[in-house]
Amino acid sequence: MKENCLQTIMAPKSVAIVGASNNPMKMGTLQCLNLMTSDFPGKIFPIHPTEKKVFGLTAYPSIADLPQAPELALLVVPTRFVVDMMEEFGKIGTRSAIIITAGFAETGADGKELQKKLLEVCAKHNIRFLGPNCMGVMNTALPFNITVTPFQDKPGGLSLASQSGTYLAQTLSYLKQRGVRLQKAMSVGNEANIDLVDCLEYLGADKDTKAIGMYIETLRRADKFLEVARKISREKPIIAQYVGGTKAGARSGASHTGALAGPDHIYDGLFVQAGIIRVSSIDDVYRIGHTLAASPPLKGNRMAILTHSGGPGTAMSDTCDRNGLMVSDLPGPVKEKIRAVIPPHASANNPVDLTFIMESELMNQVIPKILLESDAVDGLLIHGFMDTGWAKQIYPSISKIMDIKYEQLEKLFSMDLGPFLALREKHQKPIVCSSFLGTEDHAVSTLLENSVPLFDSPEKAALAMSCLYKHFQIKNREVDEPVPSAIPGDVVEQIQNSASGPLDEHNAKQILAQCGIPVCREKLAQSVEQAVDAAKEIGFPVAVKACSAQIAHKTEKGLVHLNIIDEKGVLKAWEAIQKSASKSPVLVCEMLGANREFMAGVTRFPGFGPLVLFGLGGIQAEALGDRAFRMAPFGQAEALRLANSIKANKLLGSFRNLPAVDERALADILIALGNLTLACPRIKELDINPILIVKGRPVVVDALIVLE
Amino acid sequence: MKENCLQTIMAPKSVAIVGASNNPMKMGTLQCLNLMTSDFPGKIFPIHPTEKKVFGLTAYPSIADLPQAPELALLVVPTRFVVDMMEEFGKIGTRSAIIITAGFAETGADGKELQKKLLEVCAKHNIRFLGPNCMGVMNTALPFNITVTPFQDKPGGLSLASQSGTYLAQTLSYLKQRGVRLQKAMSVGNEANIDLVDCLEYLGADKDTKAIGMYIETLRRADKFLEVARKISREKPIIAQYVGGTKAGARSGASHTGALAGPDHIYDGLFVQAGIIRVSSIDDVYRIGHTLAASPPLKGNRMAILTHSGGPGTAMSDTCDRNGLMVSDLPGPVKEKIRAVIPPHASANNPVDLTFIMESELMNQVIPKILLESDAVDGLLIHGFMDTGWAKQIYPSISKIMDIKYEQLEKLFSMDLGPFLALREKHQKPIVCSSFLGTEDHAVSTLLENSVPLFDSPEKAALAMSCLYKHFQIKNREVDEPVPSAIPGDVVEQIQNSASGPLDEHNAKQILAQCGIPVCREKLAQSVEQAVDAAKEIGFPVAVKACSAQIAHKTEKGLVHLNIIDEKGVLKAWEAIQKSASKSPVLVCEMLGANREFMAGVTRFPGFGPLVLFGLGGIQAEALGDRAFRMAPFGQAEALRLANSIKANKLLGSFRNLPAVDERALADILIALGNLTLACPRIKELDINPILIVKGRPVVVDALIVLE
Repeated sequence: MKENCLQTIMAPKSVAIVGASNNPMKMGTLQCLNLMTSDFPGKIFPIHPTEKKVFGLTAYPSIADLPQAPELALLVVPTRFVVDMMEEFGKIGTRSAIIITAGFAETGADGKELQKKLLEVCAKHNIRFLGPNCMGVMNTALPFNITVTPFQDKPGGLSLASQSGTYLAQTLSYLKQRGVRLQKAMSVGNEANIDLVDCLEYLGADKDTKAIGMYIETLRRADKFLEVARKISREKPIIAQYVGGTKAGARSGASHTGALAGPDHIYDGLFVQAGIIRVSSIDDVYRIGHTLAASPPLKGNRMAILTHSGGPGTAMSDTCDRNGLMVSDLPGPVKEKIRAVIPPHASANNPVDLTFIMESELMNQVIPKILLESDAVDGLLIHGFMDTGWAKQIYPSISKIMDIKYEQLEKLFSMDLGPFLALREKHQKPIVCSSFLGTEDHAVSTLLENSVPLFDSPEKAALAMSCLYKHFQIKNREVDEPVPSAIPGDVVEQIQNSASGPLDEHNAKQILAQCGIPVCREKLAQSVEQAVDAAKEIGFPVAVKACSAQIAHKTEKGLVHLNIIDEKGVLKAWEAIQKSASKSPVLVCEMLGANREFMAGVTRFPGFGPLVLFGLGGIQAEALGDRAFRMAPFGQAEALRLANSIKANKLLGSFRNLPAVDERALADILIALGNLTLACPRIKELDINPILIVKGRPVVVDALIVLE
Repeated sequence: MKENCLQTIMAPKSVAIVGASNNPMKMGTLQCLNLMTSDFPGKIFPIHPTEKKVFGLTAYPSIADLPQAPELALLVVPTRFVVDMMEEFGKIGTRSAIIITAGFAETGADGKELQKKLLEVCAKHNIRFLGPNCMGVMNTALPFNITVTPFQDKPGGLSLASQSGTYLAQTLSYLKQRGVRLQKAMSVGNEANIDLVDCLEYLGADKDTKAIGMYIETLRRADKFLEVARKISREKPIIAQYVGGTKAGARSGASHTGALAGPDHIYDGLFVQAGIIRVSSIDDVYRIGHTLAASPPLKGNRMAILTHSGGPGTAMSDTCDRNGLMVSDLPGPVKEKIRAVIPPHASANNPVDLTFIMESELMNQVIPKILLESDAVDGLLIHGFMDTGWAKQIYPSISKIMDIKYEQLEKLFSMDLGPFLALREKHQKPIVCSSFLGTEDHAVSTLLENSVPLFDSPEKAALAMSCLYKHFQIKNREVDEPVPSAIPGDVVEQIQNSASGPLDEHNAKQILAQCGIPVCREKLAQSVEQAVDAAKEIGFPVAVKACSAQIAHKTEKGLVHLNIIDEKGVLKAWEAIQKSASKSPVLVCEMLGANREFMAGVTRFPGFGPLVLFGLGGIQAEALGDRAFRMAPFGQAEALRLANSIKANKLLGSFRNLPAVDERALADILIALGNLTLACPRIKELDINPILIVKGRPVVVDALIVLE
């Protein structure tokens, strides 16, 4: 296997830092300082034009003066120096770099030009680099930390790859306070050379990384990202926040599919397809990411909830309900065991509610043991450990009146969580806790210290647990076989030779039919006589529509006549069509009776493969925009998931007195659309709308193909 | 105005505490201690069978031994003593009580019986009481705190009313750490006597309460709650979490409306109607509640975002976008002013991104001033103050190498936030901040100290700001005139005299027509000849349906024949209907062509007035469950909001080539449904489905009325 381009960047044997000085108000200095004061096992070479020493370390006036070629170059210098310096590093043999300096493509045309030059110079010397405009990397396993903040925690299992530098450079104390421990982290900046896909590949292969968190504003290689993420997510959880999808809004285009393809929907589909758990805040990336990294795998969705108060129990239960977790009645024998040990007013149901009691062993040993031992419990949610934090809260009033030392009071409340931690270790079932107390509480600090996921609200704990279940589902979902492209050569050739713009409806449907997509029976008629003959052959009732590549929005223009029941009707339709679209041939189609309408299509988006849409059809549904996307190619398992991703997926089953939809036939249509578009890069947009369900089988009734 | 029943409970001149002792591990003791050690200005009478003194205070062996009747009695005693003690308190003249003791209605049949007895005794003596099974109240203005936790903060503007005691008894240090300051709080427990509605009335009238937060599991008087909340929310923000709606799931019933009426949807509609901002975690109730209480009103949705990093700025912007706030380009002159003072790589667009800089005055004075002075900015979001918390983060590495005292480093970073706070005071525009630092940071602690809303993630700050905008919208929404009941007397009488169960379709539609609801033209036919005559009179095409109160699900049984175009067709339909439903009369109706289908209905739910549903119709839409509820009675403004509450509200405007729907006509239907059900309590359920839109006007095509 080829070595990942981040291998040296994440674990260099030697580093040159250009921009380090003795002024601690400078970023480069802070980065150098963090490196020097950590246990980094490699060599450090500060480079500074005038300083002889940087904090006691020999500084070199220029790159050429270095005693050896450093494996990694770190640049924190004014923008104008960057390109020349990279040239110099290239010359001495350095092949990896991190460019912190900003002022490149993110600033406009001049910056873009400069970034291009930077890329040329680096390409010439085979240099791989992170940035520009990034905040560095961190590898707690080595250790190697060149962010501006010192890492002062134990290494953990969560690794981060972020398009915002802040999210790894400035959150270390935030993370420490919340018990979130990082393993590795990288800020990718402008991704001029190394991007999130490279990070994902690196972290996927890294044995110390147990879960991957990402902050994403845009993907430049979404197709490759999908390929890589899909593999990793079967092993390690990936959790990501995507922002930026709303601003861009819906895009314009000739097709409905284009209009429905806002980036937020596209990324949503991509994440599902890739097996990535999407969350909506960076806080969730960190804290749920830590839960995923630090917990044994959840093997089912049956939750037990243990609490000392109704509110938090109900809130956890409600959050479970909304997120796919079950809070069912406990089995009779389990309930009996619980009932035998709890106070009479407490509840042995699920949630187990001990009510406000001072006997902490029930909460942290006795009941957890009963619950974890039960085969009917996959995971445990606990709210309400009350330890020294509670003693600290009440001490001010007690001390005013009683002659008691704080230490005495604390002893009354202090818990031994050793048995609890041993239970956790033994049963290897996820336990997620919440508490309204902070690290001033001994139970809270003990749990954090031992990497027990702990949240400051019951709802957040339950949400994190639901993400463990999501990962379970991703790991266990059906995997697609590689999809052979089944597009006939003459279809590809025909499209290759067609003019730009839309194909006419009949033409479009013939192409689809050749790709194995079921279309309605129809005939093209050039004259009224042909139209009448066609109608007779097909059988009444029929639909008669103008058929021309030049006419869009036929329905709105009155060029579609439905439910024609006799020759007279065909005649009237012909005349009406000729009046507004003279000399247009007409398409005579069978009229299909159907209660369920869907739509499908393909659109394109920069950096993505063809995006196949599936949605509810008809104008009512269109107003709702109930649709989902997947990136082609995909196989039947993914196509079935796509079909079932719409909110109205109930309609695919037998609904009212309608038979179930043949989902495999529907999936085949979606697969074929993707394959067709992959085989024909000239297809810019494609709509099939509606797809009617006739006796359970999908049939395409109208189609639009637009060529580049 | 009648005095609120909580007046004495929240501010008693004297309190007896039954259950206080000298053992600090007992709840009653803790409550007594908190009261004694605070500055409570009233008298305290501990009652204990054996102790002569409780922490130095004279204790009384029984209620009869008290030197005076206390204004308030607090009971923390075993369940079995409660009723008798209330009898004693009643006898000596106490008229207010808080019953902490659990073991009543929440525990089952015996407890319900006991609660009934408790109510009888209290009624006899005109005692109003909170609980049983509650955690007390807190009034920081007096002060008066009888929860188990001492209040150690300044009084704030947020008051709480909660159905979970934990949420006010055990979160005080949690709140203090997060800068959330309470004004008043009450835990209502089982609500045997005083309920959330009473609390809401009390807090609505309390001048020190600037915002009201609620935790709700069930409303026992939803109709009264709506009436009270609707008035208060026009002045003060109300924010609430409702949990418990998912578990119960959809209810069964004869009508679609019933099946669609899960409690979660009903509460959702109730909250909107009442002007309550609904959130999904207790954390949001507290922290967004505090933002609402501590901020000047937001007067528009134009946000400026100020940050030192791309990620948080984008995340704030994205959250704004998703929640109704605008992050538009700043006006040219504002941009120029900003451009003139920021570094070249920084961005003068919105979000204003200063990038990683050490010059803190730009961040906390210069740019905020420019932004707040602009008329184009309604509110300001800031992420990235970096003060001493930052110094503390980097000191460990710096100190290892430099001979620098922490105090020296701190001085380099310490900010003067005085000018910032003065700007905030002067401009009276909401400012909401986020920071990844904690209270160890001087900027963070200064902001918290001064009640500037501060969150630990940018997304949360933006979400809180969007709730300020929601309150602005609630305050400014159109208010309904009282709705006169316009139901004709003979309709009421007819329903009164009808048999239980469903009315037949024709009958139902006639009733609706008499209430002013437009229904399709139709005639009831008892014979095939009458059916043919009716069809001719109405004009082909027609629909022919079996019409009998005994037949439900006509379509599924093949008893509905649509699009009949001639006499022959009527004949065939008649015969087909008679075959499966012999001797059933048929209904001959005009066939209406329509592309848009809606549905409406009414259902009932314990504690609520009639609930009017509006939703998208047709089977496709039914699968989606796109619907909303309001409680009757309501006027046109609310009815229009109901109609527009569905996700597919686009369909109400002109859509494709369809004309806009006459929304006022639609609103009138919804109002009439509510009034009809109010006038006729025997109406259990009611469906009108579909409502077709014919040339923009709504027409009811099928209806079902079920009587109790």
